[in-house]
Amino acid sequence: MSLELDATAQDLLFREARTANTFTDEPVTEEQIQAIYDLVKFGPTAFNQTPLRVTLVRSPEARERLVKHMAEGNQPKTATAPLVAILATDNEFHEELPKLLPPMPQVKDLYFSERPVREQSALVNGALQAAYFLVGVRAAGLAAGPMTGFDFAGVQKEFLDDDHTPLMVVNIGKPGEDAWFPRLPRLAYDEVVTTV
Amino acid sequence: MSLELDATAQDLLFREARTANTFTDEPVTEEQIQAIYDLVKFGPTAFNQTPLRVTLVRSPEARERLVKHMAEGNQPKTATAPLVAILATDNEFHEELPKLLPPMPQVKDLYFSERPVREQSALVNGALQAAYFLVGVRAAGLAAGPMTGFDFAGVQKEFLDDDHTPLMVVNIGKPGEDAWFPRLPRLAYDEVVTTV
Repeated sequence: MSLELDATAQDLLFREARTANTFTDEPVTEEQIQAIYDLVKFGPTAFNQTPLRVTLVRSPEARERLVKHMAEGNQPKTATAPLVAILATDNEFHEELPKLLPPMPQVKDLYFSERPVREQSALVNGALQAAYFLVGVRAAGLAAGPMTGFDFAGVQKEFLDDDHTPLMVVNIGKPGEDAWFPRLPRLAYDEVVTTV
Repeated sequence: MSLELDATAQDLLFREARTANTFTDEPVTEEQIQAIYDLVKFGPTAFNQTPLRVTLVRSPEARERLVKHMAEGNQPKTATAPLVAILATDNEFHEELPKLLPPMPQVKDLYFSERPVREQSALVNGALQAAYFLVGVRAAGLAAGPMTGFDFAGVQKEFLDDDHTPLMVVNIGKPGEDAWFPRLPRLAYDEVVTTV
């Protein structure tokens, strides 16, 4: 093996980890989510812009409102997962840049004065952070079930505002019975990587 | 600690890992990149679309062509890193879907018949995979230096084609002297996570 990360961690984060479709009743605690955030917040983003925002849907009333906006096939698992998180981007992330990037105060106005530029940057960097978050959920010994099958405008209107765009909804918990389908194929190395 | 991942792995992937700006001369081998890919290829994407494509810039001639397109501040490190990778999205990823998603042959035509939809999906899911790749580089005990400061159209024309869009350029290697700036601040948990 050419990796420094030990095999147990490789399994936990990638090899054995799977997108779960069913979950046990075991709750996901606030402490677990804080520990996940305190780990994955260090993942790199451009200009340290860290545009990801997370809404934890904990109350039964909020869960009900969310399930309505999910695609039919995603409704049962979103209704029953121990915890559901809405991952979104903050398109006004530049307001935080003076705090996040003290050595380069000019970046906020130089690169991010226009909203469409911010939206595009938040989308890409928010997706990077969403991936770190999914890895973090797995690092906590939990399974994640990321979904994009939902009414984005509906979820935005119901839970966010005009400055925040939904990226994905993630079911979180210990995997239950028949939690996943067989592993799907992946592209071979030579189909993905070329050398020049 | 509420995490199952051990502290050594946490440090390797997130806490101690940093974006490197200088590197030692130690080469990054083909075996290392294969091991990284064989780990992170399992990271989840929507419909298993896995749109990320990687170009390893190994020849001095290709390196020279790439450096020309980098922002001035990124040129010295891109010129000297042991390995540089161009991460890009394949906007025609849907052609691979019948192979990648055998249980749902309808997805290719149902959701991805239009190019703008594919470009947007490839951007988000390619960014997820780019994040997995950066985590994988760290899992190999290497430092990554992701950069978006380059001429995207120039890099596309020079190394890719109309169907592939650059996402980022990543310097890869063992960190050298004064490899990084002090760690930048991160947003507090309560600034990122809300509960409903």
